[in-house]
Amino acid sequence: MYETLKQRLFALKSNRIFEFAVISVIIISALEIGAKTYELPGVINQLLVGLDWFITLFFVVEISIRYIADDDKRRFFKNGWNVFDTLVVVVSLVPVNDSELALLARLVRIFRVLRMISIIPELRTLITSLLKALPQMGYVVLLMFIIFYIYAAIGSYLFAEINPFLWDNIATSMLTLFRVMTFEDWTDIQYETMEVYPWSWLFYMTFIFLTAFAFLNMVIGIVVNVMDKESRKEAERLRDELEAEQEPQPSLADLQRQIAELKQLLQASNQRDQRH
Amino acid sequence: MYETLKQRLFALKSNRIFEFAVISVIIISALEIGAKTYELPGVINQLLVGLDWFITLFFVVEISIRYIADDDKRRFFKNGWNVFDTLVVVVSLVPVNDSELALLARLVRIFRVLRMISIIPELRTLITSLLKALPQMGYVVLLMFIIFYIYAAIGSYLFAEINPFLWDNIATSMLTLFRVMTFEDWTDIQYETMEVYPWSWLFYMTFIFLTAFAFLNMVIGIVVNVMDKESRKEAERLRDELEAEQEPQPSLADLQRQIAELKQLLQASNQRDQRH
Amino acid sequence: MYETLKQRLFALKSNRIFEFAVISVIIISALEIGAKTYELPGVINQLLVGLDWFITLFFVVEISIRYIADDDKRRFFKNGWNVFDTLVVVVSLVPVNDSELALLARLVRIFRVLRMISIIPELRTLITSLLKALPQMGYVVLLMFIIFYIYAAIGSYLFAEINPFLWDNIATSMLTLFRVMTFEDWTDIQYETMEVYPWSWLFYMTFIFLTAFAFLNMVIGIVVNVMDKESRKEAERLRDELEAEQEPQPSLADLQRQIAELKQLLQASNQRDQRH
Amino acid sequence: MYETLKQRLFALKSNRIFEFAVISVIIISALEIGAKTYELPGVINQLLVGLDWFITLFFVVEISIRYIADDDKRRFFKNGWNVFDTLVVVVSLVPVNDSELALLARLVRIFRVLRMISIIPELRTLITSLLKALPQMGYVVLLMFIIFYIYAAIGSYLFAEINPFLWDNIATSMLTLFRVMTFEDWTDIQYETMEVYPWSWLFYMTFIFLTAFAFLNMVIGIVVNVMDKESRKEAERLRDELEAEQEPQPSLADLQRQIAELKQLLQASNQRDQRH
Repeated sequence: MYETLKQRLFALKSNRIFEFAVISVIIISALEIGAKTYELPGVINQLLVGLDWFITLFFVVEISIRYIADDDKRRFFKNGWNVFDTLVVVVSLVPVNDSELALLARLVRIFRVLRMISIIPELRTLITSLLKALPQMGYVVLLMFIIFYIYAAIGSYLFAEINPFLWDNIATSMLTLFRVMTFEDWTDIQYETMEVYPWSWLFYMTFIFLTAFAFLNMVIGIVVNVMDKESRKEAERLRDELEAEQEPQPSLADLQRQIAELKQLLQASNQRDQRH
Repeated sequence: MYETLKQRLFALKSNRIFEFAVISVIIISALEIGAKTYELPGVINQLLVGLDWFITLFFVVEISIRYIADDDKRRFFKNGWNVFDTLVVVVSLVPVNDSELALLARLVRIFRVLRMISIIPELRTLITSLLKALPQMGYVVLLMFIIFYIYAAIGSYLFAEINPFLWDNIATSMLTLFRVMTFEDWTDIQYETMEVYPWSWLFYMTFIFLTAFAFLNMVIGIVVNVMDKESRKEAERLRDELEAEQEPQPSLADLQRQIAELKQLLQASNQRDQRH
Repeated sequence: MYETLKQRLFALKSNRIFEFAVISVIIISALEIGAKTYELPGVINQLLVGLDWFITLFFVVEISIRYIADDDKRRFFKNGWNVFDTLVVVVSLVPVNDSELALLARLVRIFRVLRMISIIPELRTLITSLLKALPQMGYVVLLMFIIFYIYAAIGSYLFAEINPFLWDNIATSMLTLFRVMTFEDWTDIQYETMEVYPWSWLFYMTFIFLTAFAFLNMVIGIVVNVMDKESRKEAERLRDELEAEQEPQPSLADLQRQIAELKQLLQASNQRDQRH
Repeated sequence: MYETLKQRLFALKSNRIFEFAVISVIIISALEIGAKTYELPGVINQLLVGLDWFITLFFVVEISIRYIADDDKRRFFKNGWNVFDTLVVVVSLVPVNDSELALLARLVRIFRVLRMISIIPELRTLITSLLKALPQMGYVVLLMFIIFYIYAAIGSYLFAEINPFLWDNIATSMLTLFRVMTFEDWTDIQYETMEVYPWSWLFYMTFIFLTAFAFLNMVIGIVVNVMDKESRKEAERLRDELEAEQEPQPSLADLQRQIAELKQLLQASNQRDQRH
């Protein structure tokens, strides 16, 4: 009986209409999240609470169907996307009365929108390729962090008394340096410290050049890496194409063997002639 | 008689002077649109009204000539550029007295400048290639929209009471986030929310990194795509060149066949010798 | 006698020390220009006036030497760099007493620094390659200008009364749009017009996307173009290398001819055998 | 006896645990530097002074071990990283009582964090590759400096009286132009000078285009350069692979030699037949 249920659920899960329904509910839940940010009359608010319960219920049922329909129960939770989907649903189930937790519950519900990514295969591959690109720029990120750390320490030692809001300790200094990197009102900060240390423009100048240079290096690194992969794929494709195009050709070694046979035949013929 | 007219108009349409006249009138209409933004003495304003009627009339005549001269009347309106040209002309014909509609009429006349694009073939190909590039980044745009939507929802839930002008609802929040993405006075917004939520710099930091990363990914995607097409074209060009360069060469299979014939001849000769 | 002078001057012009002296004087003239921007005591100002006369004289002598030493007097002025050098020197010679023209004279002297580019061959090639890259992006620049023009006209029609300083006529509107494109305090402009036209964020949003997209397209176009040239060069280099590497090989056609000869010999032999 | 010590120290230096200890102490020293930027109770400050002495001592011992364990004492100081490490350690040893020098001593200690780069091989190669990329853009940087210098001179001559804070002399003008290049509140500067010189927007416009264009050129130059190196490596790799893949084939020249032998045999046979 469980087998029959499982098969039926698998058929349901693979159904186009079921998939369409799931995407629709995700979109509705996204719209609901957006709607809640507006001031709404009480009636609609009541409706939204009802809608919220329907969505939660729908997701529980959907995840259960997906779980039961799966052949290998263990593998189900090895897939990060399934774990993510389940987590989002389970957290939504926790009943919340306290007002502080209510805000948290609202925030958690926002992550339901991320189910959009887990349900659309193209977005999933996009995310996985983004995650794969991360480690290859690990050392450049480390280098950048070291640059930030050193400049933040210098900035904090020298400028802390000039403007404690910006340079009080190493954490606020790093935030200020990030602001400088985005060119956001950075000259105000510079003019302020130049009144005490007239040469402090060198601090900002070198920082901007170093980070821009490291950033540029990272971008070029990624581009070259992607290009490299693409050109390898392309080269392989071309080689396969070329091989498929050609009719199977005898190798030069085959020809050589045949010519050697000819030679033997001729030599035999000559020897016979001579014996005559 | 209609045929004769059609042929004459086709000759006219293909005429270099006619084309030159059309471009001139488009440029004049663009200059007129620009001139109207200045405070002008009444006499010149009167002249501009006259000029406007002349341009409208000219465009009506031109589009009629192009339509009559076309062989396939149906295909004429399947071409998006023709539809666009006709629309711009037809809308300019609507008589406007009301002052509110007058502004609309002025706005519609601005789109006449776009006829510059429909008349210069190089710009048309540029636009079509831009439009072709759009779908290939569809999923990255969708991903970016999801990122914006989630951050806007979080921002609206948490910061709405801190600054309703920026975070009141999900729509204004998305506008604010677009502002943050362009680094436009984003630290002011950040310092404001950090007073209530000291950890909110994480919100801005992660948002900037995520969008920058997705944007970078999109740019690289397009570059790789364009490069790929170019390198394929180039590879094809090279192959054609190489093929054209070489004199038609016998294949190794041809040689093998000939050597096999030699062998048969020799074997026949040997058999004859033995029969002697 | 003129020939001897010419040869001597040519020897002088080709002399390393002469070239070094010219570069030194250009650098001194650049430093002098910089020095004049500071408040200086009268004595040094007097010295600078003297130095200025020395530099002018030196450049007159140098350009005369280069002109006399040149074989083809006509070609001398066909070279744009020579024309530029001569112009800068001639304009410096005009005596100036009037205070208004004095400023102009000072400005003209600044262009002497540009002689740095005309004297260093690497910078000259850099500039020529930059100039060569210009036409290939001509149509994208035209497209961008059309986008700017249309948006400036719309902006001027709609927002002129909101803020005449920014949107008074099409010229100031285009300047304002350039400011928006550089993201410089663009949200202030947006918030101002959104008070009257709440949907005007669409105006800024579409403008930013269109220009960013066109700009991106231009950059990619240039990159692809440069890459293309490089890869062609590289492909040619590789082909030459491959050709040089291989020992001259008999073609398959040569082999076929030889096998055909073998066949004829065998057939002749067979026919003789049969005639026996 | 010295030899035994040297060998033991070499074994120690090559030990994984020793390397791990060095990295740990560097991280601790980085954290200590960060901690000092916060207001700390006296006890912890006392502890930090002790920690500082321990770190200094540890680094002295470590650098001594590395020096003694090295075979070639001269080569040790030819390696820039070793010189750097030694310098940082030696400077930390100088006793400081004066308060002004105390700040300097604190600053010098910050550079200990840079030892992170000298100890992690991947970061070292990253830095060396960055340094290698510098000279290839030397001429573009020179060109950019000339552009900055000329515009700064013009700006200082024309605008010095409008706003001495921004345009007083050539140095402040260059700083202001760098600000314009980063688009930081550049329109404020522009509007100010446009009140006196209405055409001064041309000054900013051309400056932005020239620097953006030169910068773009530099980036493209680096990308093309990196790509070029990559594609050469790739091409070499492919060629090696192809060569390794193929079984040693007889060349066409070998075949030709064999066919020639056949021909000789046949001709000999024919001649014998004719002599019969």
